[in-house]
Amino acid sequence: MRLARISTPEGAVHAVADGADWAVVEDVFARPLVRTGERRPQSTTVLLSPVEPRVVLGMSHNSGPADRARPPQAFMKSARTVVGPGDVVHVDPRRGEVRIEGELTLVVRTVCRDVMPDQLADVVLGWTIGNDVTAVDQVLLDPLFTQAKNGDGFTPIGPWIETDLDPHDLSIEVVVDGVRAASSSTAGLAWDAIEAFCYVTAHMTLGPGDVLMTGAPGTSATVRPGATTAISIDGLGTLVGSVD
Amino acid sequence: MRLARISTPEGAVHAVADGADWAVVEDVFARPLVRTGERRPQSTTVLLSPVEPRVVLGMSHNSGPADRARPPQAFMKSARTVVGPGDVVHVDPRRGEVRIEGELTLVVRTVCRDVMPDQLADVVLGWTIGNDVTAVDQVLLDPLFTQAKNGDGFTPIGPWIETDLDPHDLSIEVVVDGVRAASSSTAGLAWDAIEAFCYVTAHMTLGPGDVLMTGAPGTSATVRPGATTAISIDGLGTLVGSVD
Repeated sequence: MRLARISTPEGAVHAVADGADWAVVEDVFARPLVRTGERRPQSTTVLLSPVEPRVVLGMSHNSGPADRARPPQAFMKSARTVVGPGDVVHVDPRRGEVRIEGELTLVVRTVCRDVMPDQLADVVLGWTIGNDVTAVDQVLLDPLFTQAKNGDGFTPIGPWIETDLDPHDLSIEVVVDGVRAASSSTAGLAWDAIEAFCYVTAHMTLGPGDVLMTGAPGTSATVRPGATTAISIDGLGTLVGSVD
Repeated sequence: MRLARISTPEGAVHAVADGADWAVVEDVFARPLVRTGERRPQSTTVLLSPVEPRVVLGMSHNSGPADRARPPQAFMKSARTVVGPGDVVHVDPRRGEVRIEGELTLVVRTVCRDVMPDQLADVVLGWTIGNDVTAVDQVLLDPLFTQAKNGDGFTPIGPWIETDLDPHDLSIEVVVDGVRAASSSTAGLAWDAIEAFCYVTAHMTLGPGDVLMTGAPGTSATVRPGATTAISIDGLGTLVGSVD
């Protein structure tokens, strides 16, 4: 299934893709999904960030095989940094270089703790694209990452959630101003998406709508104000955005 | 004014203290406050965490004058760790020593960024007590603090919010199992509450209900399962809790 959060005159609602339409659902985290009967044509519907997380996590140093020698480690971003497809990343020129990072992103369905791999089907809603925008020069000033990770619009996610996807070898492509700036695969992650998720839930409870960006295996690129960006992942489409 | 979030048969609502009652308000972040007319006796009303933050921040290395030589630094905790007065901190024996930390805590009223000290009256809702529970042994394993700070119930806040309070020299007392375990004053913070808040908003947008725990100036104590805890701050009452 493909799930999205869409804009309607009555406000934001969740919906499931059905033919050329979005079919509105009552509670995207419920099973089975219950449709309200309202339908919107996909061609004219504005997509929003597919969830509004309470907790936004990213994986640190998870970029390639050498990182496998270090234990996994996660950081938190402000939920207020989350934006949706087509939204704008605001760069503060006082903060130095800014990089976008294209990452496979897990979306949580239920309250969960100490998740084991065989429980994933119950606990995970699906997968989307995350852009873990980072003011990289700030990491030197603040090793807790707080200064680097929390600028306005610094966590674009979308365009939608796919519930049926094998996360282990999905190609990721990062395009800036129409030019391919980076490309790789989730197979390049030191700790794969499922290992990363189980690690995180060993240390904290997560719940409906929370997201874990699983790391950038060489999928980052420097951006400057005025740039347009497009991050594509196999099976998940393209998350477009811009920078100002 | 004293503001609280209280439990009623119709769910959680915000209220303002009025004589022996809590007078329910429509929107605790609005000015002026509008009362609904509903009143509840304080003596029989259950208090909840005074806000439900989207962003929970703490200050790192802010414990005494020597820390003033280092730049201020903040970390984020999961909003899902927030609990209220009388609630339970869950200790995971696999994670080593756990300490409670009694901290003056700022509550944000409006969406804000790059706050200057002369804007505080508009931007800040008030002050409460925060307990920044920390699994201290985890800091050595995870210098990003994610493993140390996000156990279940690891951020008790309350019992209420005081809107009129000078944060600069408030005594803090930490009591474990009826015995005073630590005592100090906010005057012992390296970066005071207002400096810390302005620092944080220079790097990220905060909004209604977000909280900043301003640091533990020698106000922490080790706890074990079965402990009862009480953190008191001048003018803010006592935040009680327990550990299991």
